[in-house]
Amino acid sequence: MFSEKMLKLGTNRSVIRDLFEYAKKRKAEIGEDKVFDFSIGNPSVPAPACVREAAIDLLQNEDEVLLHGYTSAQGDAGLRRNIAEYINEQHGTSLTADSLYITVGAAASLTISLTALAEDGDEFITFAPFFPEYRVFVEKTGSKLVVVNSSPEDFQIDCEAFEKALTPHTKGVILNSPNNPSGVVVTEECIKTVCGILEKKQEEYGHPIFLITDEPYRELVYDGVKVPYLMNYYDNTIVCYSYSKSLSLPGERIGYIAVSDKAVEWKNIYAAICGAGRALGYVCAPSLFQQVVARCIGKTSDVSVYKKNRDILYNALTEYGYRCIKPDGAFYLFVEALEKDAGAFSEKAKEFELLLVPADSFGTPGFVRISYCVSTEQIEKSLPAFKALAESYGR
Amino acid sequence: MFSEKMLKLGTNRSVIRDLFEYAKKRKAEIGEDKVFDFSIGNPSVPAPACVREAAIDLLQNEDEVLLHGYTSAQGDAGLRRNIAEYINEQHGTSLTADSLYITVGAAASLTISLTALAEDGDEFITFAPFFPEYRVFVEKTGSKLVVVNSSPEDFQIDCEAFEKALTPHTKGVILNSPNNPSGVVVTEECIKTVCGILEKKQEEYGHPIFLITDEPYRELVYDGVKVPYLMNYYDNTIVCYSYSKSLSLPGERIGYIAVSDKAVEWKNIYAAICGAGRALGYVCAPSLFQQVVARCIGKTSDVSVYKKNRDILYNALTEYGYRCIKPDGAFYLFVEALEKDAGAFSEKAKEFELLLVPADSFGTPGFVRISYCVSTEQIEKSLPAFKALAESYGR
Repeated sequence: MFSEKMLKLGTNRSVIRDLFEYAKKRKAEIGEDKVFDFSIGNPSVPAPACVREAAIDLLQNEDEVLLHGYTSAQGDAGLRRNIAEYINEQHGTSLTADSLYITVGAAASLTISLTALAEDGDEFITFAPFFPEYRVFVEKTGSKLVVVNSSPEDFQIDCEAFEKALTPHTKGVILNSPNNPSGVVVTEECIKTVCGILEKKQEEYGHPIFLITDEPYRELVYDGVKVPYLMNYYDNTIVCYSYSKSLSLPGERIGYIAVSDKAVEWKNIYAAICGAGRALGYVCAPSLFQQVVARCIGKTSDVSVYKKNRDILYNALTEYGYRCIKPDGAFYLFVEALEKDAGAFSEKAKEFELLLVPADSFGTPGFVRISYCVSTEQIEKSLPAFKALAESYGR
Repeated sequence: MFSEKMLKLGTNRSVIRDLFEYAKKRKAEIGEDKVFDFSIGNPSVPAPACVREAAIDLLQNEDEVLLHGYTSAQGDAGLRRNIAEYINEQHGTSLTADSLYITVGAAASLTISLTALAEDGDEFITFAPFFPEYRVFVEKTGSKLVVVNSSPEDFQIDCEAFEKALTPHTKGVILNSPNNPSGVVVTEECIKTVCGILEKKQEEYGHPIFLITDEPYRELVYDGVKVPYLMNYYDNTIVCYSYSKSLSLPGERIGYIAVSDKAVEWKNIYAAICGAGRALGYVCAPSLFQQVVARCIGKTSDVSVYKKNRDILYNALTEYGYRCIKPDGAFYLFVEALEKDAGAFSEKAKEFELLLVPADSFGTPGFVRISYCVSTEQIEKSLPAFKALAESYGR
């Protein structure tokens, strides 16, 4: 009668959405400030001032028909040029507007890139823990998602396991660093090993393997950690980016795909991306926010709040006896559950009004994700609850 | 190496895009006002004042984290309620927020609806002339597009041909009224016949056939013509709507899907729509414009300009000897080419600096589409060129 697959996707809410709905209900019952909701990765820091200034100026002074009109499908040419120049400045690349395709956010960047690349029987590799929607996006193209576990101590890539997972069917590898949910930034050393393996396997199989790097958290890093720019390490790279986190605009849906101008047949890959955007119904990215972003390139929200939250939470939780992966970036703390079943642990945490996401659907059972993109006050007020939760497990 | 299908979609620009690019070049050569560009359906009338007012007020006074934050995937609950109430008020339906799914514009409304419905071997019927992207959207789901010709005199639906085109594989019918490119509004009589045939065939085949009504031009009608609301004629109706034309916001990408609460298993259809939106990478519709639209429901741009343009153009062209379908709505005039090959006619028109879209890709060879969503001044200045073009064919 209709697609059972889509019905299933629409009915089985993600565990994150479930907690989000529970939070709403619970807050109504006992009060907003009594529930420590760490479930959602919604930036808690406002957009930088340039966003509001640019938007109001554009609305007041630009021709409305142009401002709200269609842009070309790949995005406004000026914006694409500005972004290319900024990337070149930051990373020493040589991109032009012709490498940039403006999207309706990171999820669109990924679905469009995957649709452009996927052929019958393809496989895409990613590393656990991973954003659960990767599975949905990859499987929608008819391809198979192959998951490689990370090293259990530091959650860097297990390169040996990665090499074994590559097959002649591997079309691409999705890498997410800084990582959601672990907060880990993959080291340059690890990147070099991964890229070396990819080069070797490309030659062995006689076809390209694409590195799709999903990096909405690029600017959210702490203590001067560097996030290597993948195009400088590997030619067949496609960067999927979003302004959701860096400019605190998750609801506005604006991001981009950048195709390396060193990738094999990169102009055809770019054309396939244009075709995929068209076929999925993406006519253009929202036009006002294309102009807003053009005026805010290189700016970010005040990410120092996230660092402060991280430090308070990481220090307290390790003191209470939790094992935490120290995050170098993003706004997630990945914590080992105090019992084997992370779902049961998350349920137990609810008794202390703590909403923690069990990480099973991220491909890493036994862990929970804590989104610390909340007010510092919430972090501070939640600490006794975390302490009591640890104590209830005899820590 | 990557998807050849997507490469083809990205490389074969539509004939409209080709003319659009030609227009840019030609304008640079001989001057903006010397080229009579009738190629693109971009509203020429600015958005109503409420759009700017609402946007600026929201930017100045709302909490930025909320304003630019994620909404739920199906859209803000308040907006969905407002739209449902407005539809009920206008059309006597009984929709609630639970029937409404806010989308990133009409193309997204269609790709999401089709993806939610399509199963292996499905067919979707539409009526020529039709918006060429229907083929792209339907084929992307793996389904087959079946095209039924309209009556050649008045471009109403040829109901006999329609009945013959239905098969046990028919999953849905896409109806676009007011129509792009003909401007025709399907009459109530014709709608009743179509729905009667659908009822009969549903019973015969023992499964539902969905009527997907694509109606971004609903408010752009002239001389008091009424556009029947399909839900009131047929239960298994899914309305795909966009604010692109009614509020002159094509670049902002905002619209909705409304699932009739009388459709079979409508809650499951709605859930499948949620699943399809998720799988295609639509996280939510742009959040600022969700709030803007919520404040502008029932408003439209000044559509009287389009009526004025239509009258001038229709009267002049028929006087010069062209055969035109008189449009009751939208902002397109559908004109029979003065030679058999509409492509050759469009090329000939270029000699007079007239850019007209040959309608072959709309499924109706021998016609051209004139988008009269331009300034009235352009219409008036173009008339001698239309006259000279007719004369060059001996009219």
